[in-house]
Amino acid sequence: MTNSNSNYVVGVDLGGTKILAGVFDANQNCLGSVKKSTKADRGPKEVVKRIARCIMDAVDECDLSISQIKGIGIGAPGSVDPDQGVVLFAPNLKWKDFPLAEHLKKRLKVEVFLENDCNVCALGAYHGELKGEPESMVGIFLGTGIGGGIILNGKLHRGFNKTAGEIGHMVIDLNGPTCGCGRNGCFEAIAGRASIYRQIHAEVQKGRETVLTTMLGKELKGLKSGSLKKAMKRRDPLVSETLSRAAEATGIAIANLVNILNPEVVLLGGGVIEALERDLMPAILQNAELYSMPGAIDGVQIIASTLGDDAGIHGSAILARMMLDDCQAPSNNVNGNDNS
Amino acid sequence: MTNSNSNYVVGVDLGGTKILAGVFDANQNCLGSVKKSTKADRGPKEVVKRIARCIMDAVDECDLSISQIKGIGIGAPGSVDPDQGVVLFAPNLKWKDFPLAEHLKKRLKVEVFLENDCNVCALGAYHGELKGEPESMVGIFLGTGIGGGIILNGKLHRGFNKTAGEIGHMVIDLNGPTCGCGRNGCFEAIAGRASIYRQIHAEVQKGRETVLTTMLGKELKGLKSGSLKKAMKRRDPLVSETLSRAAEATGIAIANLVNILNPEVVLLGGGVIEALERDLMPAILQNAELYSMPGAIDGVQIIASTLGDDAGIHGSAILARMMLDDCQAPSNNVNGNDNS
Repeated sequence: MTNSNSNYVVGVDLGGTKILAGVFDANQNCLGSVKKSTKADRGPKEVVKRIARCIMDAVDECDLSISQIKGIGIGAPGSVDPDQGVVLFAPNLKWKDFPLAEHLKKRLKVEVFLENDCNVCALGAYHGELKGEPESMVGIFLGTGIGGGIILNGKLHRGFNKTAGEIGHMVIDLNGPTCGCGRNGCFEAIAGRASIYRQIHAEVQKGRETVLTTMLGKELKGLKSGSLKKAMKRRDPLVSETLSRAAEATGIAIANLVNILNPEVVLLGGGVIEALERDLMPAILQNAELYSMPGAIDGVQIIASTLGDDAGIHGSAILARMMLDDCQAPSNNVNGNDNS
Repeated sequence: MTNSNSNYVVGVDLGGTKILAGVFDANQNCLGSVKKSTKADRGPKEVVKRIARCIMDAVDECDLSISQIKGIGIGAPGSVDPDQGVVLFAPNLKWKDFPLAEHLKKRLKVEVFLENDCNVCALGAYHGELKGEPESMVGIFLGTGIGGGIILNGKLHRGFNKTAGEIGHMVIDLNGPTCGCGRNGCFEAIAGRASIYRQIHAEVQKGRETVLTTMLGKELKGLKSGSLKKAMKRRDPLVSETLSRAAEATGIAIANLVNILNPEVVLLGGGVIEALERDLMPAILQNAELYSMPGAIDGVQIIASTLGDDAGIHGSAILARMMLDDCQAPSNNVNGNDNS
């Protein structure tokens, strides 16, 4: 058994633009957190240094030393190999096959556990907000892109290639707009923030009027979810129509998941939901109901996450705690094939 | 322990038009089977009598008596409550809230276990064909409609309302054709047999030429999957285009499932696949690959079932065996909430 003096873990949320590190005690209370910019353009090894500094600062902020940290969990964007601790492909970071866990462990002398960022956000919301009570939960995170994390029987479902949860690239409108991934009609191509902006830009280029040009100029410089919120308050038709399509797509994506997986809870998170929850939720719920099969959606909770930006560090800390527990116990907290 | 003399189970596949009952020994060998027409128009109680007769005939055919049967598994179309043994809603049979298991048990004095027909087909294929080896499998059954069954961690995934696996009503083409369920763009509305026939009929009504009218007359009376196969052999453009869209939709549905759930195996079954496997599979595989995220589909097996019509009785027998084992053991072979 470990001395309770050192029963701390760190959760890290690694994003394309920022790094967030939080220190958690044995009761999953966040004792403090520190944010740094990622500076991905400096290359992976420099980013590792920044992550390490962010962690050291957070630990120091909590009047602890790194030797008191039992483990570090880290959620990274893109596809990852959790068993090897390798980021396989992260377009936002421009990383390919980078052994992040190994590099970070070498630097800090602490065990490092890696997962996909949406998977850790799902873990964070499931344990942090829902107290691990529902049997199953699908987390849908609407940000620049759209990702997901699936909890079944209380465990993270990772699947055969450990890539499960790619909800944003579910095709829902075969003849619809082209997605960043190159395919047509992905959920993300209609409801992701980048796609919402692209649709608005395209209409403005065509000469369509919107309060956004009054607010930000013709080029819509500095367009944010907050700008959309202001435009909605002013009942701007272009923004309203665009968000209405995004909400419809989100409702349909939820209905597809309810029809296929039939989870107990569907949890929505990410920047778009944080900023526009009130504007989007009624149409999301209406469409989810409309497109679900009779009986399938009865009693299924469709809710917005309250953790906001903190879901990632919460989930990463939970991941670290689970993996450390697994090292001591034979049972596993993560579903998936173990052919390794 | 039971005398090995009575270690038999019966698997029943209840369809809208026919009932199939098979007797299985302890090694899951089918000793014999009997088929009867359903005669659903005579009402549920008459259908129960026909199911009972079908079972008795099958048992007699195998030189056994009903007292040697330990349990009966039955797969029924539509939504069912497996715990209560009730068919909740079966449009094909015109049944609503019918306690099938209770009625059948009263008649035969044998334990009866009920499941959705696609779930038992998935169980049958998973254990019968794949020997229960893959960690996970999604079964997609293309018949008049399209249904599915999901196996995760070796167990049937039923979900919160026990309705999981409604793959046919996954929306993939939001602005596409109207489905029998009333919504637009469901997978089934493009690739189900009824939808394929409807599309062909509509084109023929518009005056489009096809070898099918030469074969069957203007009204396309007696159109079957086999007729489509013959038309494909004769390179009929209308049939070829229609099936090409169906194969594309099937590939996209598979890719969505691979992106979301990332199963080890996707197994295709049902009458459409049985009749048209060679014509459809190349385009199905091509589209599944095209619409899957990089890495997600690597090594995922996409295969056609070889069990054919027998998947249902195999799966129902396996269900019965599992449920009987469960009565003796604390572990459960079926995932899902047990709030009952």
